[in-house]
Amino acid sequence: MVTYGFVGVGIMGRGMVLNLLKTGNKVVVWNRSADKCKDVVDAGATVASTPGDVIKAADVTFAMLADPEIALDVAFRADGIVGAVSSGKAYVDCSTVDEECSTKIGAAITAKGGRFLEAPVSGSKKPAEDGQLIFLCAGDRSIFDEITPALDVMGKKSLFLGETGAGARMKLVVNMVMGSMMTAFAEGLSLAEASSLSQEAFLDVMDNGAMACPMFKLKGPNMSKGAYPTAFPLKHQQKDMRLALALGDKVEQALPVAAAANEALKRARAAGHADADFSAVHAVVRKGP
Amino acid sequence: MVTYGFVGVGIMGRGMVLNLLKTGNKVVVWNRSADKCKDVVDAGATVASTPGDVIKAADVTFAMLADPEIALDVAFRADGIVGAVSSGKAYVDCSTVDEECSTKIGAAITAKGGRFLEAPVSGSKKPAEDGQLIFLCAGDRSIFDEITPALDVMGKKSLFLGETGAGARMKLVVNMVMGSMMTAFAEGLSLAEASSLSQEAFLDVMDNGAMACPMFKLKGPNMSKGAYPTAFPLKHQQKDMRLALALGDKVEQALPVAAAANEALKRARAAGHADADFSAVHAVVRKGP
Amino acid sequence: MVTYGFVGVGIMGRGMVLNLLKTGNKVVVWNRSADKCKDVVDAGATVASTPGDVIKAADVTFAMLADPEIALDVAFRADGIVGAVSSGKAYVDCSTVDEECSTKIGAAITAKGGRFLEAPVSGSKKPAEDGQLIFLCAGDRSIFDEITPALDVMGKKSLFLGETGAGARMKLVVNMVMGSMMTAFAEGLSLAEASSLSQEAFLDVMDNGAMACPMFKLKGPNMSKGAYPTAFPLKHQQKDMRLALALGDKVEQALPVAAAANEALKRARAAGHADADFSAVHAVVRKGP
Amino acid sequence: MVTYGFVGVGIMGRGMVLNLLKTGNKVVVWNRSADKCKDVVDAGATVASTPGDVIKAADVTFAMLADPEIALDVAFRADGIVGAVSSGKAYVDCSTVDEECSTKIGAAITAKGGRFLEAPVSGSKKPAEDGQLIFLCAGDRSIFDEITPALDVMGKKSLFLGETGAGARMKLVVNMVMGSMMTAFAEGLSLAEASSLSQEAFLDVMDNGAMACPMFKLKGPNMSKGAYPTAFPLKHQQKDMRLALALGDKVEQALPVAAAANEALKRARAAGHADADFSAVHAVVRKGP
Repeated sequence: MVTYGFVGVGIMGRGMVLNLLKTGNKVVVWNRSADKCKDVVDAGATVASTPGDVIKAADVTFAMLADPEIALDVAFRADGIVGAVSSGKAYVDCSTVDEECSTKIGAAITAKGGRFLEAPVSGSKKPAEDGQLIFLCAGDRSIFDEITPALDVMGKKSLFLGETGAGARMKLVVNMVMGSMMTAFAEGLSLAEASSLSQEAFLDVMDNGAMACPMFKLKGPNMSKGAYPTAFPLKHQQKDMRLALALGDKVEQALPVAAAANEALKRARAAGHADADFSAVHAVVRKGP
Repeated sequence: MVTYGFVGVGIMGRGMVLNLLKTGNKVVVWNRSADKCKDVVDAGATVASTPGDVIKAADVTFAMLADPEIALDVAFRADGIVGAVSSGKAYVDCSTVDEECSTKIGAAITAKGGRFLEAPVSGSKKPAEDGQLIFLCAGDRSIFDEITPALDVMGKKSLFLGETGAGARMKLVVNMVMGSMMTAFAEGLSLAEASSLSQEAFLDVMDNGAMACPMFKLKGPNMSKGAYPTAFPLKHQQKDMRLALALGDKVEQALPVAAAANEALKRARAAGHADADFSAVHAVVRKGP
Repeated sequence: MVTYGFVGVGIMGRGMVLNLLKTGNKVVVWNRSADKCKDVVDAGATVASTPGDVIKAADVTFAMLADPEIALDVAFRADGIVGAVSSGKAYVDCSTVDEECSTKIGAAITAKGGRFLEAPVSGSKKPAEDGQLIFLCAGDRSIFDEITPALDVMGKKSLFLGETGAGARMKLVVNMVMGSMMTAFAEGLSLAEASSLSQEAFLDVMDNGAMACPMFKLKGPNMSKGAYPTAFPLKHQQKDMRLALALGDKVEQALPVAAAANEALKRARAAGHADADFSAVHAVVRKGP
Repeated sequence: MVTYGFVGVGIMGRGMVLNLLKTGNKVVVWNRSADKCKDVVDAGATVASTPGDVIKAADVTFAMLADPEIALDVAFRADGIVGAVSSGKAYVDCSTVDEECSTKIGAAITAKGGRFLEAPVSGSKKPAEDGQLIFLCAGDRSIFDEITPALDVMGKKSLFLGETGAGARMKLVVNMVMGSMMTAFAEGLSLAEASSLSQEAFLDVMDNGAMACPMFKLKGPNMSKGAYPTAFPLKHQQKDMRLALALGDKVEQALPVAAAANEALKRARAAGHADADFSAVHAVVRKGP
């Protein structure tokens, strides 16, 4: 039986570990603040003292960390992953990091004989709890094939995209479309309002037609009331737009709609909505009263 | 029992009439080319010689005509609707026309004692056949309330939006968002391709996430192969973007993403894609080989 | 000796007539409010009672009227130009009107045996007084050739552009570039300010480099202080952008920068700057304090 | 009498040194390829063996180097500037480098007791030869005041902008406006062409109005013929747009027109115009034949 490791048991990681445990897997965990581990320990997980101890104890170690800085720290600290990894061990990084960060960690692990899979996810807290994440995997194909059962209990879909870096890139492309769609939707709400149409009717029509999607259904009613409770902060969405545009610059792909949406998101940041949900772009698109 | 009239039994009208007949309604029809009436006559409809004869024979007359010119002709020709309408008769125009056209027809009918409901639809041939249209109604509320049963067999959703003109405006707002979303989606496909990601994987991720919608699911696979079989012609989509931007101009609502998408659609028109599906905007967004 | 007629002795016309008189020409004038004629009468002009009387008395009649509505009224009113024009008489319309208006007036005059030259100007009050206008002429070439001496005293440059309508189109193209340049300049001022650079220094650099132009030199210092004294109202500039974009739509020319600038100008209109100078686009481009 | 040093005697540096010599100054030079020094030696300059020797021999040393990499190399190589600089010596870097590069060199020099002035220029080969450059200075004000006579013979204008980094930023802001203006101008040329107006007439009107500027006058006639002889490569212009937009991102300044122009420039890069003049953006803005 495979032993799984898991470093980072926060908002996302907690749900993922619970899903692994629920299906009878053995999981060794570590978290910076140990108290965050309580729920998963209650559900059967074992706690290790350091990230390095996790990788020693486990066959396959997942990581779900908040940002590139923490991902690099966990990998390269004295008692971290790279120092402890050995031949055959697999490290699966689900954190959202940039292509360079991912490549750097992967190279260090491979140099020590380990195997590396980049696996950022599409989905947030709720999908993590419900086992409905989408895994955007890239790197070592052998890991991807071996961990299919684990990915299947944590997510509804897993894709293998090629060499390390492809997962990070795919996440940018998808989030770029998300930012453009959200701004386009905000323009629709605003034009409906400005031309004396009911915003509720607009949402109803959208929700019954070819453009009906979970995002509009979820966020539309709040937006129409000028409410933007944070699920994905606007500053992170705008950062992803910026990085996607930078990727476009690198590969010579012009992206005029994303560029226009990005400027609207920037305007929203400047207007004080950086920490609101990214749907708050509506607040600056909308014509003032 | 109510007798329905129906003028315009083309691609859309045929399916709508068949659905009315299927549920046991009595329908009197007229079409410019009489041979188009064969299917509905076989299914039980009666044919009248002129639009005027339809309105005389029916309590409620629907119209589904190709464009504003034809809608105006059918209304104002010697043997047309306005000449024959009388007190209490209801005319429901489902054609996609602009606000002025709608208002003009409505005023003429009302002046003769008739009642008018503007009711453009969201949806094309297949939804018309399947009774899955969305009716964007505006004008005389009494008609809307009376014809609920008929709208329910032809569509899945009917909204009453207010005074005549609101239906035409709502259609523009929704189609504007559609044009922006399609261009944003084309940018996503293009950036995936240009940055060495599989377009199939991109479609797969989109189809499993918060942005999954029937339009992307339907058109994405063809787009990824550079195929754009016409469902809604690009020139019509771009015309709707232009009219929506003109509406925004009138009500002082800035729409920078729609404006950027509109310029991409214009570029597609200039490049010879006017009669292709509007998803052909992908052909000009995409970086050349 | 040629007798000139002049209908419309307002802000622009006054300076133009004075320049004609100053060089020894005979001028017959008419203005809706007769009191506006005082200065030119003092300088030697004769006043006629109606536009029709002007064209009867003069060989070549210039018009400088505020908008298309007034231009059409002066042409078609009972005692107007078209009713009085006769074989060989020349009518030179310098008003800023759209292509259709120009074409309509031209056709009516030609039908009566008269000759028509469309001649909108580039330049405002000061250039009109200083004889520094640019005439964008189109229509009857014979008039253009005959009136060179008159155009030379009123302007510094006259171009013959082809058939009636070309003058109106050229004016739109030039004003479109003006709107884009102004918005680009406002972005420069704003980025300088937001990144802790002196706006005065920015203006100084601009004024000494390859992009130095009279418009930036004139308006920049006021803009940097948030002052936008009206020379050309923002609502008119934005209208010209809209018409230029409509022209682009008609001829299938995509114009993404003009479209982006137009949305910024629209936002400025919505924010209450419609009657300020068009440089007030700076007020909405600029990041708030 | 002040002794000037000059490292980098290339296209720009050659003209600058000749102007210094012409007015009787003593100049010690160094260049990577020594043969480039011939003209200035003929005119009276002395050659040193290393950058370090220049700074030892001179009171004030100017640098005009091709890019940040070379600027850093000349500063930090074993026989470079930083190793040789001593108390009171002044180093004036006129190279176009980014803010970080400038700051890094400045800090190293200051740490050794030297003084540093960042002084990128606006202007290219011809203005360098003609003494018509604009110096965008920032850093140590005492140097700026002392070298006024030297700046005056090499340029027509010198500005002191504040702390090190301000010169680099100002250059980005100005070049951003340049890229937007050029794209706006290309749209004007294209709309004139597409709507059957003479491009020559358009250039003529532009050249006589409020938007007349040396850049349009210089490049317009070539552009109208589809010729884009390289003065400033499009790839460099687009890079400056990208960096200016990144600066805007950092300081939360939305720049929608620059963003739209940047996408057009990217499209031009993708279409093979990277090494042509930046006016080649016209080639992709323009509607195809």
